[in-house]
Amino acid sequence: MAKEIVLTGVTTTGTPHLGNYVGAIRPAIEASRQDNTESYFFLADYHALIKCQDPERVKQSRLEIAATWLACGLDTDKATFYRQSDIPEIAELNWLLTCVTAKGLMNRAHAYKGAVDDNLANGQDPDFGITMGLFCYPVLMAADILAFNAHKVPVGRDQIQHIEMARDIAGRFNHLFGEHFVLPEAVVGEEGSILKGLDGRKMSKSYNNTIPLFDTEKKLQKGINKIKTNLLEPGEAKDPDDSTVFDIYKAFATPEQTQQMRQNFAEGIAWGEAKKELFTLINGQLSEPREKYLELIANPVHVEEILQSGAEKARARARQMISDLRNAVGLVNFK
Amino acid sequence: MAKEIVLTGVTTTGTPHLGNYVGAIRPAIEASRQDNTESYFFLADYHALIKCQDPERVKQSRLEIAATWLACGLDTDKATFYRQSDIPEIAELNWLLTCVTAKGLMNRAHAYKGAVDDNLANGQDPDFGITMGLFCYPVLMAADILAFNAHKVPVGRDQIQHIEMARDIAGRFNHLFGEHFVLPEAVVGEEGSILKGLDGRKMSKSYNNTIPLFDTEKKLQKGINKIKTNLLEPGEAKDPDDSTVFDIYKAFATPEQTQQMRQNFAEGIAWGEAKKELFTLINGQLSEPREKYLELIANPVHVEEILQSGAEKARARARQMISDLRNAVGLVNFK
Repeated sequence: MAKEIVLTGVTTTGTPHLGNYVGAIRPAIEASRQDNTESYFFLADYHALIKCQDPERVKQSRLEIAATWLACGLDTDKATFYRQSDIPEIAELNWLLTCVTAKGLMNRAHAYKGAVDDNLANGQDPDFGITMGLFCYPVLMAADILAFNAHKVPVGRDQIQHIEMARDIAGRFNHLFGEHFVLPEAVVGEEGSILKGLDGRKMSKSYNNTIPLFDTEKKLQKGINKIKTNLLEPGEAKDPDDSTVFDIYKAFATPEQTQQMRQNFAEGIAWGEAKKELFTLINGQLSEPREKYLELIANPVHVEEILQSGAEKARARARQMISDLRNAVGLVNFK
Repeated sequence: MAKEIVLTGVTTTGTPHLGNYVGAIRPAIEASRQDNTESYFFLADYHALIKCQDPERVKQSRLEIAATWLACGLDTDKATFYRQSDIPEIAELNWLLTCVTAKGLMNRAHAYKGAVDDNLANGQDPDFGITMGLFCYPVLMAADILAFNAHKVPVGRDQIQHIEMARDIAGRFNHLFGEHFVLPEAVVGEEGSILKGLDGRKMSKSYNNTIPLFDTEKKLQKGINKIKTNLLEPGEAKDPDDSTVFDIYKAFATPEQTQQMRQNFAEGIAWGEAKKELFTLINGQLSEPREKYLELIANPVHVEEILQSGAEKARARARQMISDLRNAVGLVNFK
């Protein structure tokens, strides 16, 4: 039986933080070790351009994210790891799909509608400040997925609609030009995979409440010390289920460690103490990959080689796909 | 001084007719012989996919149009002649430009607005049946032009807005990422370059009133015989300026021949006679290229070789451009 293809993309505009690690990186790398799946991981740097017009930031983020995934143990012999922008076939497929996508479908995209609602609330023209990048983004995402006929796409809840759109677009193309595409399915992570940030909301770059994954040990400690806690004194019992410190601890601990910490909370552990234990736990798990990460960051040529060889693997497949599709729509060679 | 770059694209959905020849092919080939210009001609087969979901028609039209331009004397040593879909850099650039294009700009495109108006008039949803291909088309057209930094783009009146949009998009990109693009200019053909069709309206595939350029001699004659005339008898004076027969004659004749035919009209030439003279004139000019055309159509491998070598020439330039642009937006290699 053919392996199930699982595809994961990471937009390259930020620096990976603990939330990315727990919610995406760690589970994806674990899943990629299964023998019945074929994993594709890509740096979504074309998507990055939609929101980020700072070349230095895009550049830096691509390197940091590549180094992070490698440092966290992604096995590039098994998985296919590449940059989106190194696969010109994706841009070509993007146009083929654009031609069969109904504009009405894009009108209904949450991200676009949200931007329009904001504009209307501010008394602006509905499309004020909205680029075609934002509007067309679901088509490019469909191309990312369909170029490799991925079966499963792990996403956050906010991305489910985009997978449904990719299915729609794929179905329309199949209807017009024959059965070329598998209809992809969204795989939504468990609630538990969403980590809380410094302020207790979901850890996210957009809330500015993150703790970087591979900063120095000192900065990790500083980050943890900044986690918001309540005013309960040492000795007073604390509610673990209402604590960001506990939430993050749990994401790195064994069940036994979690149980022990739960008891510590009930027994009134001081916040400072709890944070110290949190730091020790996380730092213990991160110090080895952090070292690898720093080595990789210091050796970008090596990272480039890995990505180039990933791009070759990915293109071998995408090239076959685009060649079939070109035949299907009439863009054949005359030979 | 660097040569001025002139770029012409032909959408590959139809079979070339006399109107295409007089309005576009002949003047473009003449202009490409000038020493101070560098000409790019391309088969706009990505654009063809917007309107045409019939692979056989796209395929056939690409070959017919390629053979037509070659048979009409396009010098591919001097001009660069290629298929749009053979230049993946155009699809890549299309995405880079998509990210800087305001959606509001596309909302104002005539072709899109026309389709919306039709829907509203029919009591439909504004975007009923409208694809993203139609909506995004001006961005792809900007990519066609900007990939080669064309200075001049010969277009019909209905396309002027698209060139203005390409300027807008280019200007926006330059503003954000540095001066990479020349702002292209539309060159609108003279009124006289629009040929009348069988029914007296502009000769156009969409009016179904065309005379094919390179059909058999017999069919050319049949086509000419179908030109609508009035009921004036032989011997009655006829108005050349209100006659499609004269209009087409003039487009192929020398000034002396035109003058003579004008006099024939005044002297009451019979319609059948006038049409015979028209046939003789056109057929005399077309029989040699028609022969070449038929040879080329019978030898698609040869046409393919010419287009492949054109694509190589075009890509050498587009590759440099896209490489510069990738650097500008932050999509650099780590080496």
